[in-house]
Amino acid sequence: MTQSFKGPTPSRRQFLSGAAAAGAGAVAASASGAATPDPKITELQPWATGFGEGVDATPYGMPIEFEDHVIRRNVEWLTADTISSINFTPIHALDGTITPQGCAFERHHSGAIELRKEDYRLMINGLVDRPLVFSYWDLERLPREQHVYFCECAANSGMEWAGAQLNGAQFTHGMIHNMEYTGVPLRTLLQEAGLEAAGDLEDKWIYVEGHDASSNGRSIPMSKAMDDVLVAFKANGEALRKEHGYPVRLVVPGWEGNMWVKWLRRVEVTDAAVESREETSKYTDVLEDGTARKWTWEMDAKSVITSPSPQAPIQHGPGPLVITGLAWSGHGAITRVDVSKDGGKTWETARLAQPGDPKAVARFYLDTTWEGEELLLQSRAIDETGYVQPTKAQLREVRGLNSIYHNNAIQTWHVKTNGEAENVEVS
Amino acid sequence: MTQSFKGPTPSRRQFLSGAAAAGAGAVAASASGAATPDPKITELQPWATGFGEGVDATPYGMPIEFEDHVIRRNVEWLTADTISSINFTPIHALDGTITPQGCAFERHHSGAIELRKEDYRLMINGLVDRPLVFSYWDLERLPREQHVYFCECAANSGMEWAGAQLNGAQFTHGMIHNMEYTGVPLRTLLQEAGLEAAGDLEDKWIYVEGHDASSNGRSIPMSKAMDDVLVAFKANGEALRKEHGYPVRLVVPGWEGNMWVKWLRRVEVTDAAVESREETSKYTDVLEDGTARKWTWEMDAKSVITSPSPQAPIQHGPGPLVITGLAWSGHGAITRVDVSKDGGKTWETARLAQPGDPKAVARFYLDTTWEGEELLLQSRAIDETGYVQPTKAQLREVRGLNSIYHNNAIQTWHVKTNGEAENVEVS
Repeated sequence: MTQSFKGPTPSRRQFLSGAAAAGAGAVAASASGAATPDPKITELQPWATGFGEGVDATPYGMPIEFEDHVIRRNVEWLTADTISSINFTPIHALDGTITPQGCAFERHHSGAIELRKEDYRLMINGLVDRPLVFSYWDLERLPREQHVYFCECAANSGMEWAGAQLNGAQFTHGMIHNMEYTGVPLRTLLQEAGLEAAGDLEDKWIYVEGHDASSNGRSIPMSKAMDDVLVAFKANGEALRKEHGYPVRLVVPGWEGNMWVKWLRRVEVTDAAVESREETSKYTDVLEDGTARKWTWEMDAKSVITSPSPQAPIQHGPGPLVITGLAWSGHGAITRVDVSKDGGKTWETARLAQPGDPKAVARFYLDTTWEGEELLLQSRAIDETGYVQPTKAQLREVRGLNSIYHNNAIQTWHVKTNGEAENVEVS
Repeated sequence: MTQSFKGPTPSRRQFLSGAAAAGAGAVAASASGAATPDPKITELQPWATGFGEGVDATPYGMPIEFEDHVIRRNVEWLTADTISSINFTPIHALDGTITPQGCAFERHHSGAIELRKEDYRLMINGLVDRPLVFSYWDLERLPREQHVYFCECAANSGMEWAGAQLNGAQFTHGMIHNMEYTGVPLRTLLQEAGLEAAGDLEDKWIYVEGHDASSNGRSIPMSKAMDDVLVAFKANGEALRKEHGYPVRLVVPGWEGNMWVKWLRRVEVTDAAVESREETSKYTDVLEDGTARKWTWEMDAKSVITSPSPQAPIQHGPGPLVITGLAWSGHGAITRVDVSKDGGKTWETARLAQPGDPKAVARFYLDTTWEGEELLLQSRAIDETGYVQPTKAQLREVRGLNSIYHNNAIQTWHVKTNGEAENVEVS
């Protein structure tokens, strides 16, 4: 059952250059070269001479203090108030695919409310046979599903339309998280309420809104509602955190995060889209000719290199280097990611840590050798539909420069000879 | 790409019994029966009239206060001191498969130490061509892998050998967690050090120990070391928590948790097992005839119903009921889980939320109807080798009653007519 590593391996000789075999275990060669005794090995260290913390110390644990920089961060100038704002997942410091809830980005329109399970209600109304109200515990009595899905804000990378603006993967691409959701398919609830009254479902819609003051109402075509939408109450095994919609949120796989209504209050079956504020003045894309794209729900294939990146520079000399990042597509599974070191002139195929899952984040690696040269690092995602992530130039040619949302262009990091990286554009 | 729900569905008529279709949306029928107006729906609620918390409030979030009972718990009488003790994952309150690090069980032999990345060293020595010392950052330069694996303490369910002792799935089966690990295959490090000096690898071993005072040394056959063992630095995307071995722990997939050495300090290649304290006086299984099984590393297939269970009683009347739990096997993937309501006389096949992954926890559901009758709930796991989880009687017949470790017997919960559940044995 072992899944062996099958990717390319870096040159061992280079990694070990200068390393001399030593006879005594305690005077081993350092993997980075030095063959001198290391006091951390040869001398007794304090943590080996005393006791650590007992199992009653942290009934619910937090990250160790040395990792206190791995946190969500907001950008003060981005919005007028933090209650209607966003913060960013520290993707530059994470690895793997799962985003812990505690550092998964938040976006609120009127702040994160506190809602008890006892106070929670979900109404299904409109063109249904039997309007219904579900308590939290009613939901727990229906058949559940589990899936890992990414949730990306439509505005992720939005500042970058106009050029390289924000210096760090956390800020350019951190409006994304990827969690294992448990919930009841929305179609189960709609079927409970009965859809005969709705007639032909082909042209029907639902309108969804939250318990918070903003309510954040959005219209969703019935075909999506009956497909893979979940009414979720757990993420990564435990209850949703307050900031992610406790106790219940909508999960709309592959579609923009704004539709994943938190503190879900009501689902109304309608015969037309509501054309709410959040789908007219917001979450539409103004094109070069002044017209606007709307109903741009699906998140196209996208990727970013998380390390090295401006917040995660190369901190070692020449030799083996792991280049890693994330790729995702709202249209299905990621099938391939390419990495360029020269700003898109040449490409190497990266290794996916696991085969891509539909509408979930994939982790990619390029195990390579760095000679200390300058790099123009890019990644390019390809999904199961064959779609290839576009360059900024390609995207601008179609969409112009007026957009905020749905920037899925290839990102470039300029890595300097000292290992530091910055956000740049290549023409 | 939609993965539709294909399991059995509960009777809708029963769920909706008494529910009357109502004309007005605001006077909808309650899903649990009542057709009277619900003030939580008809009256404006406080959380819809004000603002919630802003995005700067919780740079690293914690669970909402209403979930403060979902925590690790230790059992004071179990051990003399909490620095050499265990706590238990609140599996009765979780769903899905991922265990958040903050509530994943801990076991320490001399407490959880704090070790900075700067102070971290990993030595590879013994029968190698070039003894090597790796810094934390050296490890990050080698090709990484990612896998979700369960980690189960050999003593999980250990108190239950003598009969039904602990009242709650958290305490009977909570010495388990399931996380997505990122790390470097141990074989990569061994190959860096060179294994020509070791000669024939078939009869070689490694001895692994940690930086903490206990050091917790264990012997592992070379065949396992070269197979799927990881030197891990991330769990569920972020750095390992202190209590899980920050910055580096060993991951020994499918094998007992004690071998997953935390704060990994040294890997020595040897020509024989060391027969350390942790593999002679501890972590062996004394049989009826006084002899002891040793090298019982692999965790056999096992399962438990997490809800309903003593800490998660049925809190509703007759009608649809979701029975759910976890199943896992150290020998590979879970292929089937059966559930019995009558103490093992008859069985129904449960639904797996997703196909089982090798050496990872699987979530199962039985979507059923409860008539308010007494239940003797059991679950039975089957893995890809065809192994079937045994009854307690079958296990005792082979192993006697002197064991502490490796109790993978079928668990029984007695659910009473009021929905409360308790830990019982059936003969």
